[in-house]
Amino acid sequence: MTRPNPAVAQSATLAEIAREAGVSAPTVSKVLNGRADVAPSTRTRVEELLRHHGYRRRRAEASRSPLIDLVFHELESAWAMEVIRGVENVARDEGLSVVLSESAGRLTPGRTWADQVAARRPHGVVLVLNGLDESQRALLTSRSIPFVVVDPAGDPGDDVPSVGATNWQGGLAATRHLTDLGHRRIGVISGPSRMMCSRARLDGYRAALDTAGLPVDPALIRDGDFHHESGYRAGLDLLKLPDRPTAVFAGNDLQALGLYEAARELGLRVPEDLSIVGFDDLPVARWVGPPLTTVRQPLTEMAEAAARLVLDLGRGERPSAATRLELSTSLVVRSSTAAPSGEGRAARFGAGS
Amino acid sequence: MTRPNPAVAQSATLAEIAREAGVSAPTVSKVLNGRADVAPSTRTRVEELLRHHGYRRRRAEASRSPLIDLVFHELESAWAMEVIRGVENVARDEGLSVVLSESAGRLTPGRTWADQVAARRPHGVVLVLNGLDESQRALLTSRSIPFVVVDPAGDPGDDVPSVGATNWQGGLAATRHLTDLGHRRIGVISGPSRMMCSRARLDGYRAALDTAGLPVDPALIRDGDFHHESGYRAGLDLLKLPDRPTAVFAGNDLQALGLYEAARELGLRVPEDLSIVGFDDLPVARWVGPPLTTVRQPLTEMAEAAARLVLDLGRGERPSAATRLELSTSLVVRSSTAAPSGEGRAARFGAGS
Repeated sequence: MTRPNPAVAQSATLAEIAREAGVSAPTVSKVLNGRADVAPSTRTRVEELLRHHGYRRRRAEASRSPLIDLVFHELESAWAMEVIRGVENVARDEGLSVVLSESAGRLTPGRTWADQVAARRPHGVVLVLNGLDESQRALLTSRSIPFVVVDPAGDPGDDVPSVGATNWQGGLAATRHLTDLGHRRIGVISGPSRMMCSRARLDGYRAALDTAGLPVDPALIRDGDFHHESGYRAGLDLLKLPDRPTAVFAGNDLQALGLYEAARELGLRVPEDLSIVGFDDLPVARWVGPPLTTVRQPLTEMAEAAARLVLDLGRGERPSAATRLELSTSLVVRSSTAAPSGEGRAARFGAGS
Repeated sequence: MTRPNPAVAQSATLAEIAREAGVSAPTVSKVLNGRADVAPSTRTRVEELLRHHGYRRRRAEASRSPLIDLVFHELESAWAMEVIRGVENVARDEGLSVVLSESAGRLTPGRTWADQVAARRPHGVVLVLNGLDESQRALLTSRSIPFVVVDPAGDPGDDVPSVGATNWQGGLAATRHLTDLGHRRIGVISGPSRMMCSRARLDGYRAALDTAGLPVDPALIRDGDFHHESGYRAGLDLLKLPDRPTAVFAGNDLQALGLYEAARELGLRVPEDLSIVGFDDLPVARWVGPPLTTVRQPLTEMAEAAARLVLDLGRGERPSAATRLELSTSLVVRSSTAAPSGEGRAARFGAGS
C-alpha cells in the first residue's frame, strides 16, 4: 500500500535526513509541507539533503488535497481556454478541483509557486510551459507530486512526461494542401524558433515543398511570435514582395488573422488573391470571414490526456514517468484556400522583380 | 481580533448547536469542515440548526487556505478568460491561488461543489453565474466564506454583493452611435430575456430610438442566446426582411460575428450595406474584418473588483455584504459602422413591402 514507486529507489528516510541535517524529524516534515515556520537556512539545508538523497515522500505520508494544479506560462494565449476545459473535464470526473496559476511571463514558475504547490499537496501538476528548473523539479519529486507538460514550447527533456501534438505532420498537411491546390510560391510565418513546436511545423512546411519538387525560398520564411500583431507585420512584409506568395501557411490561427488584416489593407481578397492556412483551430477560426482553413490541434483532448497521465503517475500506474504522448493533428478545410487565380498569377508575373 | 462581523449577530455558539443536535462539538466541527466521516442524517440535522441559528464561524476558528474560488456557469463563454485574468491578478498580489470550477451548465453549482468549498476553506468565492440557492448560501455563510457575483445573468438579489457593468448605458451608446450616423431602421439581437444584462441592453436600445424620435419596430427585435450561431440565425431573419435594417446592434460580440457571417452569405458588405455594433470588446473584435465597433465591457477590471471585494468582505472591511458595483462601459468605434449608403436606402425603398 505504501510501496514506493519501483522506478525510484528510496535512498533515505525522513529520520535519516533529519539526523544528517541536525534537526528534528518534524522539522523535515514542516519543510516538506511548505510551512513558513522554518528558518530559511534550515530550509535550504534540508532541501539540499532531500535533493541529494533523491528523497521521495511515500504515498501514505502524502495526504493529498482533492486538487490538481494547472500552470500556464501566459493566460493571454487564445487557446488557454481549450486546455482549461480539458483539465476541468478530468477533474470533474475524479472529484477534484483545478487550481489555476500563471507563471506571469516567466518560462518557469517562481519559487513561491513551487512552495505553494508543496504546501497544498495536489494530486498532480499539469504545466503549459517549457518545464520546471532542476530545483523545482526536485521539490515536486521529493513530495511525490507528479507533473506532466502539455504542448511544450521547447524540448521538455526525455525524463519529463509530456503530451504534444504532431506539429511536423500538421505543417506538412497545411503546406501539402496548398501545393495540391496548385500554389508554387508559398510563404510561411513561423512561431518563435526557441519553441520546438514552431520548428516542427516549419520543417513540415519544408518537407511538403521538397516532396512537391518546389524550392524553399528563404525570402518567403518569416518569424512571428504566435500573436495577431506579428502575423500582421510579417504578412505585410510577405505581401509587399515584388514576387509575392499566392498562399501562406500562417503558423497558427492568430497569425492567420493578422495576415487577414494585412491582406485587407493591401486590397487582396482571401482566397481569390491569397490562400491562408492556420494552425490550432480555435473557435474563432469558424467565425472569421472567410472561415479559416486550419490544422486542428486537439487541445482539449491533449489537456485531458495530460491530466489523466498525471493522475496515473500519482497512483503509480505507469512504470515510468518518461512518457511522451503525441495526439494527431488534422487538416480542416474551410473557405480561406483555393487554387491560385490566373489573374493573380498574371499580376504576379507582370510585377516580376 | 476575532470580532464577528458587526452586521451579523452571533446567535448561537458551536457548543450550543452541538447540544441542540445531540452530538459532540467535534462532530459539528466536522460538518463545518466538510469532512466525510459524518452520518448523512447527522449532517443534515446539524446543517439545519446551523442555518436556523444563522451560525457564522468566527474568523479565528476559520483557518483559511491561501485560495480563492472562481466558479463559472460555463467555461464556453468567450469572455471567461478575461474574468480569469482579473481574478488571477488580484490573487497574485495577495499570494493566493485560484481554484477554478464550472457548474457544468446548471445555473447554480451542485451540492458537491459547496461541500468541496467548505472543506478547502478559501478566502472567498467569486461566482460568474446567477447566484447560489438558499441552502448553498447558508452553507457558505455559516463557514464565514464570503462570495461576490460577477456580471449576474439575472437579478442577484439585493443582499448578494455583485459587480456588473452599465449595460443599459452600453445599449444606449451603441444605438445612439447608429442614429447619429443617420440610420433609421436599426435592428437588435438581444441576449436571453432571463438575463438582466440582456434586458438592460435592450432597454438602452429602446431609449436611444425613442430619444431620437424613431419608432420601436417589434419586427426588428430578435432574441439570441449570446452565441455565434444565434447571431447568424437571427441575422439571416433580419436581413431577409423586405424592409431590412441598415444597422444592427448585435447584443454581444459573438452574435455580431454570427451576423457578419449572415451578411457575407447574403452578399451584404459591412459597413457599406450594413452597420454592426457588438458588446463586450473581446480580443477577437479587433481581429475580424472589418474590425468591430463595439461597447467595451471592462471584464478584467470587473473581475478584479469582485476579487478585491470578496477579500475585503472576508476581512470584515466592508460594513455590509449588500454591495453593488457597476463599472462603466464605453463605445469603441472601429470599422463596422458607417452612415447608411444612398444605394442601400434606394434598394430598401425599392424593395418596399
